[in-house]
Amino acid sequence: MNRIKPQIPKGFRDFLPSQKAIRQQVIDTIRNIFEVFGFEPLETPALEYASVLEGKYGEEGEKLIYKFEDRGGRQVALRYDLTIPLSRVIAMYPTLPKPFKCYQISPVWRADKPQRGRFREFWQCDADIVGSESMCADAEVIAATYYVLKALHFKQFKIRINNRKILNGIAQTSGIEGDTIPLLLRTIDKLEQKGIQGIQDEMLEKGFKEECVKKILELYKINNGKYNDLFNLKKRFAGSILVLEGIKELEEIFSYLASQGVDSQCYCFDLSLARGLDYYTGPVFETTVDEPKIGSITGGGRYDTLIGMFSDTDFPATGSSFGLERIITVMEELNIAPSLSTITEVLVTVFSPEMQKDSLRVASELRSAGLKTEVYFTHDKLKKQLTYASNKGIPFVTILGPDEQKNNNIIIRNMTKGSQKAVSCDDLVYTLKKELSEI
Amino acid sequence: MNRIKPQIPKGFRDFLPSQKAIRQQVIDTIRNIFEVFGFEPLETPALEYASVLEGKYGEEGEKLIYKFEDRGGRQVALRYDLTIPLSRVIAMYPTLPKPFKCYQISPVWRADKPQRGRFREFWQCDADIVGSESMCADAEVIAATYYVLKALHFKQFKIRINNRKILNGIAQTSGIEGDTIPLLLRTIDKLEQKGIQGIQDEMLEKGFKEECVKKILELYKINNGKYNDLFNLKKRFAGSILVLEGIKELEEIFSYLASQGVDSQCYCFDLSLARGLDYYTGPVFETTVDEPKIGSITGGGRYDTLIGMFSDTDFPATGSSFGLERIITVMEELNIAPSLSTITEVLVTVFSPEMQKDSLRVASELRSAGLKTEVYFTHDKLKKQLTYASNKGIPFVTILGPDEQKNNNIIIRNMTKGSQKAVSCDDLVYTLKKELSEI
Repeated sequence: MNRIKPQIPKGFRDFLPSQKAIRQQVIDTIRNIFEVFGFEPLETPALEYASVLEGKYGEEGEKLIYKFEDRGGRQVALRYDLTIPLSRVIAMYPTLPKPFKCYQISPVWRADKPQRGRFREFWQCDADIVGSESMCADAEVIAATYYVLKALHFKQFKIRINNRKILNGIAQTSGIEGDTIPLLLRTIDKLEQKGIQGIQDEMLEKGFKEECVKKILELYKINNGKYNDLFNLKKRFAGSILVLEGIKELEEIFSYLASQGVDSQCYCFDLSLARGLDYYTGPVFETTVDEPKIGSITGGGRYDTLIGMFSDTDFPATGSSFGLERIITVMEELNIAPSLSTITEVLVTVFSPEMQKDSLRVASELRSAGLKTEVYFTHDKLKKQLTYASNKGIPFVTILGPDEQKNNNIIIRNMTKGSQKAVSCDDLVYTLKKELSEI
Repeated sequence: MNRIKPQIPKGFRDFLPSQKAIRQQVIDTIRNIFEVFGFEPLETPALEYASVLEGKYGEEGEKLIYKFEDRGGRQVALRYDLTIPLSRVIAMYPTLPKPFKCYQISPVWRADKPQRGRFREFWQCDADIVGSESMCADAEVIAATYYVLKALHFKQFKIRINNRKILNGIAQTSGIEGDTIPLLLRTIDKLEQKGIQGIQDEMLEKGFKEECVKKILELYKINNGKYNDLFNLKKRFAGSILVLEGIKELEEIFSYLASQGVDSQCYCFDLSLARGLDYYTGPVFETTVDEPKIGSITGGGRYDTLIGMFSDTDFPATGSSFGLERIITVMEELNIAPSLSTITEVLVTVFSPEMQKDSLRVASELRSAGLKTEVYFTHDKLKKQLTYASNKGIPFVTILGPDEQKNNNIIIRNMTKGSQKAVSCDDLVYTLKKELSEI
């Protein structure tokens, strides 16, 4: 038979146990905080009708959708994000009680050019609240973001917050028309990447009038793009109902964040934040870290009209998304990722062929007590069995020979310290649990 | 804008929170037992090169692969099961320490005709041991199967066990040639479904000689296909080295199962079990339940030559797969599925707009203590807030009004009993945790 070359498509990855264990631990933490905030789990299919996904992600996003014809001739596509499937769910099951608070932790697929930190299959962790116009909902999404990052031991991060209403109001005041505003915002979104000169050039190139561009960028030139003076902004745009409304909403959010114990060092108003997608209608937010340079690790906002694309009824909604691989990359670079060579806690060695069953009985007892236990399968020399445990990073080993058995004892070997002691068989579980809790 | 019809392709499903919560709980249980048995997590991509999957699943399986051309003109395919990706991983990373014990819990896709209990996207939970020829490994996979089903509160189930060596030996003794044996076994695999007469017709139709067919089916006619007398079989085929070797392996497995406390009522030798896939080389196993009629809920076996299709080296391997949706269907029909209308434990109500922030503070305290807490967002009448909790099935509600606040108290309402009591704010977390532990 011809051998098949074992390989996977570019941009896709295998996660071997030590990597997958870290991912699983991060996912468990995120899931726990989401649930503690009252978000409930939701799962949607990997395949959607292409028509459900098309026309939602902008021109550039559209090209990245994995689309194909299924065997029945239907145009289907792999899930591109988790927000559109959620919106489709809300429209499909209109009787779901509102507010509907849910989270999704699932892979998404984009036919992007693979490069450092960018993959074709990656996981998103989304928390959304549908059916509430209250700024409490936005504050809750932001607070959940904060507490997730805290639970993951992030120390320095900033949740940057803006409001599309403010940006729309400023655009209007500067003489930019309704239809072209999304184009303007997509350009402002590139401020950090291209600098003020860069986005000025792009705006002019895209046909915005020089005087409008000048008026808008005036604001960004103050403090080199990092404009975050809400008080000053309020005075400056006292004539724009939209700007004032946007500011009021943010003030409300900030006060709710304070009530929930969110450290004010960890969030700020940031006028340069626009977010790339057209569907945001209100507050938008994004988390960045100073180090490493990696772009945002969470992003989201309010999208009050998106669900209306699938439904006769509009449903107000807000939510945020965590990028799992970026979170893990940052954790690894900051050395806050759990380091796990194995999740197995004990290796039960086998002294001799005759004693295989006795070792199985020991393993069975440890497993009943919930200890993650591996038992050696063959009758290699004890030294080889210890080397196996050591190579795999299993912290404890049990040894049961005829002498121990005679005395109803068993040996526990601490592989890290290289020390060992005999304990009574009755104390085995207790002793191991105690020692495991101490590493 | 044209409204897009919110729908999903046939054979695909959304899991709304109450369903997803059950799935999650079952997955968590399976994962926990797998880890306790020393299996470690593995994740492979949803997309593989089509060449990796093709030629592994038989003629019928082949047609069900979701295959398409990606934007770079490469033939790719959605994961069809978890065994082939694992085999590809072992060949790709030959230095992984052996035995390599891993589990995968992931969706797979098959373009099957959707029907009751059969979907195009469904989840498999696999546990595999690669790199060990020991029957200890097979016994461990079977023991893990048993303990998973116990942990899921299954009461009546039978793990049927056979050995391809026995079947191959019998076939040889009956005069059937090496190359046609897989075809024979695929037919025997249909015994339960088609009956003895049915498979006899099929064998003759497929060109097996009448005398060979007669010889083979003789055995199955004893006890109406449920032949499980290993002792008698040993005498009957005393001349076949292959049959005797297969029997010896099973005896070894049975003795290891006994050492691990696996109830002998829950497993048996069953000569009628063949398994449909060609790649099995040794022991095969499958779990069935009497009620409901649903086919097997787990299945697996030893596949010592499969990995060699991707690699210069053969690696012995054995493993088993749980079908998540079948497991859940059975649990629901037997009423052993957890019934969860919501996973949220407490709703914090809001007495008045002025007290929104006080309620947020309460919610924050409960969340810090790990309680799954929702806080009401708007200032509806208390009655409406209680109705919301009741509709959603949230078991407890807190009420904090000016009177309570004055006395540093807070009211806890038990929504199931309809009773309520005031407790000191300091005792809130403790009291709620106590009451939650009692439901």
